[in-house]
Amino acid sequence: MSTFTKSAATDDEIRRRVDEYLGRYVKGENLPANLEEAVLYAVLSPGKRIRPLLVLRSCEALGGESEKAYPAAAAIEMIHAFSLIHDDLPALDNDDLRRGRPTVHVRFGEAMAVLAGDYLNSVAFAALAAGYPGEVGGRLCSELSGAATAMIAGQVYDTLGGFPENLSAKEKLDLIHRNKTGALIRCSCRMGAICAGADALQLEQLTKYAEAVGLMFQVVDDVLDETQSAEQMGKRTHKDAEAGKLTYPGLFGLEGSRTQVRELEKEALTAIETFGDSAEPLRELCRLLAVRTK
Amino acid sequence: MSTFTKSAATDDEIRRRVDEYLGRYVKGENLPANLEEAVLYAVLSPGKRIRPLLVLRSCEALGGESEKAYPAAAAIEMIHAFSLIHDDLPALDNDDLRRGRPTVHVRFGEAMAVLAGDYLNSVAFAALAAGYPGEVGGRLCSELSGAATAMIAGQVYDTLGGFPENLSAKEKLDLIHRNKTGALIRCSCRMGAICAGADALQLEQLTKYAEAVGLMFQVVDDVLDETQSAEQMGKRTHKDAEAGKLTYPGLFGLEGSRTQVRELEKEALTAIETFGDSAEPLRELCRLLAVRTK
Repeated sequence: MSTFTKSAATDDEIRRRVDEYLGRYVKGENLPANLEEAVLYAVLSPGKRIRPLLVLRSCEALGGESEKAYPAAAAIEMIHAFSLIHDDLPALDNDDLRRGRPTVHVRFGEAMAVLAGDYLNSVAFAALAAGYPGEVGGRLCSELSGAATAMIAGQVYDTLGGFPENLSAKEKLDLIHRNKTGALIRCSCRMGAICAGADALQLEQLTKYAEAVGLMFQVVDDVLDETQSAEQMGKRTHKDAEAGKLTYPGLFGLEGSRTQVRELEKEALTAIETFGDSAEPLRELCRLLAVRTK
Repeated sequence: MSTFTKSAATDDEIRRRVDEYLGRYVKGENLPANLEEAVLYAVLSPGKRIRPLLVLRSCEALGGESEKAYPAAAAIEMIHAFSLIHDDLPALDNDDLRRGRPTVHVRFGEAMAVLAGDYLNSVAFAALAAGYPGEVGGRLCSELSGAATAMIAGQVYDTLGGFPENLSAKEKLDLIHRNKTGALIRCSCRMGAICAGADALQLEQLTKYAEAVGLMFQVVDDVLDETQSAEQMGKRTHKDAEAGKLTYPGLFGLEGSRTQVRELEKEALTAIETFGDSAEPLRELCRLLAVRTK
């Protein structure tokens, strides 16, 4: 177990530093001015930066140097931002509002939204290659590319089907979200662990934590989509029910979903209970995600 | 200089083997059935596989084991295929025909075209990470991500502008194509060289070869777009002139463009003239690309 190291950074400090990395990667590339503007608009939009926080807190939990985790944290946020831009496109979810602002295609046009998303997908791997020249870079590249492809597969299941035969509604829902939301959250924790030089057991424990948190995150998302207003969420809500999509509240009811959230929170915390005090911010993050209201 | 090793494989044999790799990567991923179908349709479509050939022939030219170059060859073809899918989208070039068949969005719908392109962009890096576990993987990842982002920037210049101020028409055209077409061709040769363990001088020579070939490829493309029918090319032609786009024949005339092709061919061959007989297939490829008619 790692020895206790007091975390020097608050969540907000980490967010600011991740944004510095994100801005630096994009601005260092000598891009067409219009592409740079669209990419920065997307990637620096006022989000929660949950995935970067998970990378950082997972690295710290194992006593790793948090400084080493920032390029990976920026890379996962780039993949996340790319997925939001493309998911919002008219041909997909057709959303006008994201994080309280017009979506990228509304603001910059559809062609630019396609290309800005593409750019963020590719540049995430450049950030990893630049940040981790040796063998760790290869492992991180493998994690990130595996998670990105899984996420895209999840988006296909969610919007276009293509399921294996004979799945129940619950199995379909799990398959969608294990891929669509779960894969990047799992990858965040695993990348943080790899940055910290985790051993096999630690990696397994963090993976369990991440899988529970990922599912919990989605159940909470579905509950919020049903109970909150668009104004509170900064994006269109009630859209799943309107589209007749499978959701956790749809299958288990609001109360059943809230019970699931509590169980998943417990499962996540149990997975890392043998970790020391250095894992406290990671535990706190799980608790916050269980009760978030936006 | 490398010793002479007779190339065991013809261009067609390399194409077949690249396609085997491409198919295996996609089928091994347990994808949604509809996504797998769209991705295979795109990536295994009857193309020339020029970039994979350049990877293989560059590796062989330096006496490298060609077997080692296949994952990189597959990865660059994935990036190329992704770019074609997205470039063809209604919001971008709005093309219905590609390689003599309906484009991906015509055949599978626009949402799937976005996601299949995204998938290929991400999975290319998974192919690299799987094929090259050590430090070479990191170098290849850096090359490929750099080339992919440059290509996307080139597409932005081509379709949406965003140029630095005060560029001449010729400078704009060069900036478009050095990025849009040139970056992946340059990357192909450099990845092949890295797979062969090239030294700095060899890498520089191959880079010069590739930059000349990349520009030549584009000049030929522009000439063919103006002189060939859609039936001959398997894609819509005369579209650059119709769209009022900058082209090499537009700036220098057909004869001037043909002269440029001959000069660039010579430049490419000169760059690798100190290479041994093992570079003969790479020289031959350059000659073929100079006189291609489709």
